[in-house]
Amino acid sequence: MKAVVLEGINRISLAERASPPAPGPHEVRIKIHTVGICGSDVHYYTHGRIGPYVVEQPMVLGHEASGTVTAIGSEVRHLSPGDRVCMEPGIPDPLSRAARLGIYNVDPAVTFWATPPVDGCLTEEVIHPATFTYRLPDHVSFAEGAMVEPMAIGLQAATRARIRPGDTVAVIGAGTIGMMTALAALAGGAARAIVSDLSPVKLEIAARYRGVIPCDPAVRSLNDTVREVTEGWGADVVFEASGSDRVFEDIFDAVCPGGALVLVGIPSAPVPLDVAAAQAREARIETVFRYANMYDRALALIASGKIDLKPLIGETFPIDQAASAFARAAEGRPGDIKLQIAVSGAEG
Amino acid sequence: MKAVVLEGINRISLAERASPPAPGPHEVRIKIHTVGICGSDVHYYTHGRIGPYVVEQPMVLGHEASGTVTAIGSEVRHLSPGDRVCMEPGIPDPLSRAARLGIYNVDPAVTFWATPPVDGCLTEEVIHPATFTYRLPDHVSFAEGAMVEPMAIGLQAATRARIRPGDTVAVIGAGTIGMMTALAALAGGAARAIVSDLSPVKLEIAARYRGVIPCDPAVRSLNDTVREVTEGWGADVVFEASGSDRVFEDIFDAVCPGGALVLVGIPSAPVPLDVAAAQAREARIETVFRYANMYDRALALIASGKIDLKPLIGETFPIDQAASAFARAAEGRPGDIKLQIAVSGAEG
Amino acid sequence: MKAVVLEGINRISLAERASPPAPGPHEVRIKIHTVGICGSDVHYYTHGRIGPYVVEQPMVLGHEASGTVTAIGSEVRHLSPGDRVCMEPGIPDPLSRAARLGIYNVDPAVTFWATPPVDGCLTEEVIHPATFTYRLPDHVSFAEGAMVEPMAIGLQAATRARIRPGDTVAVIGAGTIGMMTALAALAGGAARAIVSDLSPVKLEIAARYRGVIPCDPAVRSLNDTVREVTEGWGADVVFEASGSDRVFEDIFDAVCPGGALVLVGIPSAPVPLDVAAAQAREARIETVFRYANMYDRALALIASGKIDLKPLIGETFPIDQAASAFARAAEGRPGDIKLQIAVSGAEG
Amino acid sequence: MKAVVLEGINRISLAERASPPAPGPHEVRIKIHTVGICGSDVHYYTHGRIGPYVVEQPMVLGHEASGTVTAIGSEVRHLSPGDRVCMEPGIPDPLSRAARLGIYNVDPAVTFWATPPVDGCLTEEVIHPATFTYRLPDHVSFAEGAMVEPMAIGLQAATRARIRPGDTVAVIGAGTIGMMTALAALAGGAARAIVSDLSPVKLEIAARYRGVIPCDPAVRSLNDTVREVTEGWGADVVFEASGSDRVFEDIFDAVCPGGALVLVGIPSAPVPLDVAAAQAREARIETVFRYANMYDRALALIASGKIDLKPLIGETFPIDQAASAFARAAEGRPGDIKLQIAVSGAEG
Repeated sequence: MKAVVLEGINRISLAERASPPAPGPHEVRIKIHTVGICGSDVHYYTHGRIGPYVVEQPMVLGHEASGTVTAIGSEVRHLSPGDRVCMEPGIPDPLSRAARLGIYNVDPAVTFWATPPVDGCLTEEVIHPATFTYRLPDHVSFAEGAMVEPMAIGLQAATRARIRPGDTVAVIGAGTIGMMTALAALAGGAARAIVSDLSPVKLEIAARYRGVIPCDPAVRSLNDTVREVTEGWGADVVFEASGSDRVFEDIFDAVCPGGALVLVGIPSAPVPLDVAAAQAREARIETVFRYANMYDRALALIASGKIDLKPLIGETFPIDQAASAFARAAEGRPGDIKLQIAVSGAEG
Repeated sequence: MKAVVLEGINRISLAERASPPAPGPHEVRIKIHTVGICGSDVHYYTHGRIGPYVVEQPMVLGHEASGTVTAIGSEVRHLSPGDRVCMEPGIPDPLSRAARLGIYNVDPAVTFWATPPVDGCLTEEVIHPATFTYRLPDHVSFAEGAMVEPMAIGLQAATRARIRPGDTVAVIGAGTIGMMTALAALAGGAARAIVSDLSPVKLEIAARYRGVIPCDPAVRSLNDTVREVTEGWGADVVFEASGSDRVFEDIFDAVCPGGALVLVGIPSAPVPLDVAAAQAREARIETVFRYANMYDRALALIASGKIDLKPLIGETFPIDQAASAFARAAEGRPGDIKLQIAVSGAEG
Repeated sequence: MKAVVLEGINRISLAERASPPAPGPHEVRIKIHTVGICGSDVHYYTHGRIGPYVVEQPMVLGHEASGTVTAIGSEVRHLSPGDRVCMEPGIPDPLSRAARLGIYNVDPAVTFWATPPVDGCLTEEVIHPATFTYRLPDHVSFAEGAMVEPMAIGLQAATRARIRPGDTVAVIGAGTIGMMTALAALAGGAARAIVSDLSPVKLEIAARYRGVIPCDPAVRSLNDTVREVTEGWGADVVFEASGSDRVFEDIFDAVCPGGALVLVGIPSAPVPLDVAAAQAREARIETVFRYANMYDRALALIASGKIDLKPLIGETFPIDQAASAFARAAEGRPGDIKLQIAVSGAEG
Repeated sequence: MKAVVLEGINRISLAERASPPAPGPHEVRIKIHTVGICGSDVHYYTHGRIGPYVVEQPMVLGHEASGTVTAIGSEVRHLSPGDRVCMEPGIPDPLSRAARLGIYNVDPAVTFWATPPVDGCLTEEVIHPATFTYRLPDHVSFAEGAMVEPMAIGLQAATRARIRPGDTVAVIGAGTIGMMTALAALAGGAARAIVSDLSPVKLEIAARYRGVIPCDPAVRSLNDTVREVTEGWGADVVFEASGSDRVFEDIFDAVCPGGALVLVGIPSAPVPLDVAAAQAREARIETVFRYANMYDRALALIASGKIDLKPLIGETFPIDQAASAFARAAEGRPGDIKLQIAVSGAEG
C-alpha cells in the first residue's frame, strides 16, 4: 500500500509499505479516507525534529484521520465494517496509573502517530484499537472527521478552562489551534471570544463566526480591547494559543479577578511569568496536553451544528500530490487554516 | 403612582401608591417599563400563598422588571439617568456570611420583590440598590430585559450542573423555567438538550431551537429517548424542571455513570429518592435556589445572540389591563410561555 | 487449598478448592493472610442475597484482604515475590468508557469478589491483576492492610464531599462505614466531625479520636448539636452512613447554606427527599459507590499516622473458626467494629 | 494612646496617637493585645517600600493582631464587650463586584492595615468592622490569635490547591509562610508534606510536625526526594513559598501527572516558566493573594488541635521595646519563625 514518508528535511516520498495484518481481538482495520496536515507534521518536515523528538529514520507522517472500517476484531462490539470513523492518534497503556485516573493523555507510555519513532497514518490502511475509534454521525463528512483531532485540543482547552455560561474569553492567536479553541470556548459556554492575531486574513476568517470579536493588536492592543468589552473587569479566561513568548509580558492585565489563563500554545523556551501580577487577581493557570475523552464531545458538537468546521477546511490534495501539499503547508499562508490530503478518493 | 395590587385571591386592583423618595447614596430611582408575570405571581393570585409565604395584606405583585434610570444616588458610579436597565429582585445583606461567601442567594436575610410582606415592582417607579441594577446592552429590548430574571434561574441551573463542552442533557418540563434551563444549558456547552413535556404545544415551541430534541413521554419515554440519543450511556445532566413528584421513580435511569441530576422545579412535598440507583452511577445531585451573579451573564448571552428569548415572549398587556393579564395567566395556556405587562407605554 | 464457602443461609463450610493456576502476564499470585468480615458478607450469610444479587450456588466469601505475593507475571514491574500487599476486590474492564473516564468503580462490567456469582478471597491463594494490588508500607500490618478496603469507601466519600480545610462535618451512623467516613473526613481536612449513633458503645469508640464530637440523638438531636457547634450556621458536609430512611425527614436542617449531603449508606427502599429544604440552602448531594484510585491514598494516610485503624480492629479468628466468626458477626455486637479472619497464621 | 510608627528606613518610634472614636453601627472597638511581626512589616522597615507601595509619611505598622472587644456598634449581634478576638486586616467594599463573587480578597478597593497610606494596628486601640472580627475559642490564646492572619494565607493556599485526602505535597521554603502552608496542607488532607529549605534550623523546626519530611537540597535535591517518596510519580501539589526565582528551573519535575503548582511566594521579578514541562503533565498552576473566608476555618483547626502553632511562636517583646523587636526581626534569624509584640501586657 502507499504511504507518505518523510525521508529527510523537506523530502517527502510516496513509498510502498506492507499492508497491516488482521486486527487483534480489540482492534479494527480502517481504510483511510482523509488526513489533515498538522503544524507538527510540517515542523518535522521543515526541521526534522520537535524538541526532543528527532526523526532518525524514514517515518510515515499524519495523525488527523478519518476513514472506513473494513474489518473488526473478535471482541469489538460498537463498530462494524462499513462504519465511517475517525481515530485518536495517541494510545495509552490502559493499565497505567494515569489511565486509571482518567488522564490517559499524560500517560508517559502513550504512543502517538507520527511522533518518532512511531509511524503516522498517511497511508492506505491502519490497524487501530476499537476503543479509540469513533463512528462519524451521518451528517459529518470525512473532511470534518479528519478535523476532530485538532478540535479535541480546543475542547480540552475549553474544558480545563472550566468556562461558565456567559463568560467572556480572549484567544491569543488565530491559527488552527487558536480557532479550534475559540470555537470550543463559544460552543462551551462563552458569550463572546475576543480573538487576537497579527494576520488580517486570519482575523477575517475568525470574524465570520458569531460571538467572535476580532482584535488586531497593531490597531488596538488586546488588553485595551478586553477592557472595553468587559467594562474594565477583564476576561474570565485568556487562552494563549500563539506559542509566542512576547505575549506574556502583560498577559495578566487581560484576566479578570479570579479568572484563568489557559496555556495551549507551546513556546520553544521558558517564558517570563509575572507571578505578582497573577497573584494580584489570584489567577488560575491551566495547561493543555492533547486531550482525553474529547472525541465523542467534538462529534456531538459538530453533528448538532454548534461547531461549524467547514469554513476552516481549505484545499484538499490527492495523496499523489502529498509532496506539494507539504510544500504548500510549509509556506504558512495565513488563509490556509487547514490543508488536507484525500487518501482514498472522492468523499463517500 | 399606579400599582398592581393583589387584594385577595383572584382579586387584582390598580391602586394608587405614594411615589418613592429620592434614592439613597448607593441607590437608583427607576421608571418601570415592562414586568413579566411569573408563576409565583400567579400562585399568590390563585392561592394567596406559596408554602410558608402568606399574603396577609394587599401586596404589589411583580419581580421580573426592566425600566429606565431617572435618578442616581451620590455614590453611584456605573449608572446614569437615562440608562435602560433590569433589576435583581432579591437584595441580601452584603455583610452576611452567605454574601461574603459569594452565595448571596441563600442569605436568610434576603428581601425579595412580591414575596410577602415585601411589595413587588408592578408599579410606575421603584428605588433599587445600584449594585443590583444592570444596564441593558443596546440591542436588548425592555421585553427581553424583563426576562433576564427567569433566564438567570436557567443559568444558575446550568452553572451548578457544571456542564462540560459537548454534554448531552435532558430537561424535564418545558414551561418557562424548563425552557430557560434548556436554553442556558445549550448556550452553556451542551451539544443537545432532550426536552420532555406532556404538552405538544410547548414541545413545538421548544423544537424551534437548534439542539433541542423534543420528547413526548406519551409517545416514547424520556429514558428510552435518552438511551437512543446517547447510545445507551445516559445523559450527562438531567434537569428536573417540572416540580412533579412522579418523575422521580426512575429518574436516575436517564443519568450516565458519573452524571448529574439538577433539581430546579420545586415539588410541593418530599419526593421518593432512589438512593441505590443514584449510587450505582455515583450521580451528583445539585439543587438551585434563584441565582447569584447571573444577570450580567444572561445579558451577555442575549446580546451576543447565543440566547434568543423573543420566541418565548407572548402577549403584552397595558398596565390598565393587569387584571385581565393575571386572569389569562391563571388559565395556564401552554402557548403562553411568558406574558408581560407594559407599565410605561411603548417600547423605548 | 482451604476456602470459606457460603453453602446456604447461615451455613458456612471450610471447603477444599483447587489452587489457582500460574499468574498471567499482568497478574500476581498472592498468599492470603488476613480477611475482614464486611457487612455485605454477613448479609449474604444471613439473607442469601443483597437486592438483585442472589447467592444461587456455593460462593467463597470475603473481599477485604491482605497477603503476600508469591509469584508475578512476566509484565509485572512494581511488585516482587515476598511483597506484603492488599488488593482491590473490584476489577473493571480497562477499555470501558467508565474506565477511560477514571471512574472505573461505576463500570457496569466490574467483577467484584464475593458478589454472586463471583467467588471471594477467603481462601489460601488468589490470582489478582497486578494493577489492583498495592504494596503495604513497612509499618502497616496485615490487619490494617485488610482494612484498606472499607477505608477506601470512607476516602471516596470524603473526596466526593470536596472537603475544604477547616470544615465541620457530621456523620450519621458509627458503624464500620460511618467510622471510616469520619476518619477520612478528619484526615481529609475537617476540623471536627460530629458523629451520631444510637449505640453508646459505638459513640464511646468514636470519641477516642481527636476531632470527633459524639452525638447521641436520644439525648440531643443531631440538628441541635450541629447548630450549637456551628453557632447556627450548619455543617459544611453531612455524611449519611446509616442507611436508615428515618434520618431523611429533616436532614437538610443540619446542612449549612451552600453545603453538601453525601449519601454513603444504602437504604433498602427509596427515601423521602425534601427538595424544597435542599434548595433553600442550595445543597449539593453526592452519592458514593465503592471507590476508585483510593488504595494508595488510604495506605499513605495509614502509614503517616494520620489515620489510626488499630482501635477499630476487634477479635481475629483463625480460618478453622470461620463459621464461629460469621455467627459472631451476625450478632452485630456494637463493639465489634471490625472482625477479621487470619487465613495463614501469625502476623508476619 | 501609644502607636508603633515607622518614621523612616530603620527608624521606629513609639508615638502618641489620638484614641479612635466610638464604633459605627457595624463596627467594634478593640483593645489590642498581641501583634505579630510580618515579613512585610520588616520589609517596610528596611526598605521603606514593597513594590509600588511606598511609605511616604509616618505609618503605624502591624496587621497580625488579637485583642479584646471593648465596645460594639448598634447593629452588631455576634460580638460583645469582653470577647477575645482576632481581626482580618483587609477590608473590601462589600458592594464591589469581587465581593459579590465571594473573592473579596481581590477587590481592588481593599484597604489593608500597614499598607501605605493605611495605618496598621500596632497601637492600643482600633475600630474595626464587626464582620471581619472573629471571636477566639476558649482554648486559643492571644498569641495564637495573632497568628491566624499568616495561618489564613496557608489555608488559602491549601484550599486553592484543592488537596484530596491522602495527597503527597511538597513545600519549597520553611519560613513563616512555608510553615503555615505545610501545616494547612497537612490539616487539609495531605498525608505527608516534603518541606525543603536551605536552613537546617528551619528544617529542624519543621520536622517536629508529624507528616513533615524535611528536605535539605544541599544534601539531596527536592526532585530526587519527591521521586523517592512517591516512587517516581511526583507530588500531587507543589507549593512555592520561597519567592526565589531559582526554584522555577525544573520545578515541574516535582509535579505528578495532573498535579498542581501553587504559587504562594512573591518573587520580585518575573520568573522563567517552562510551559512545555508544565503541559507534559498538564499541570494546573494556582496563585494565592491573601485570603477570603479563612479566619473561621483557621480558628476551628487551631481549636480542635489539628494545627498547633505554639512551636512557631518565638520571643515576645513588650510594646516599649518595639524598636528592638524590629531590629531583631530584621536580622532574620532562622529560628525566629514568628516574633510578636505584646501591646497590653500579660496574656489575659
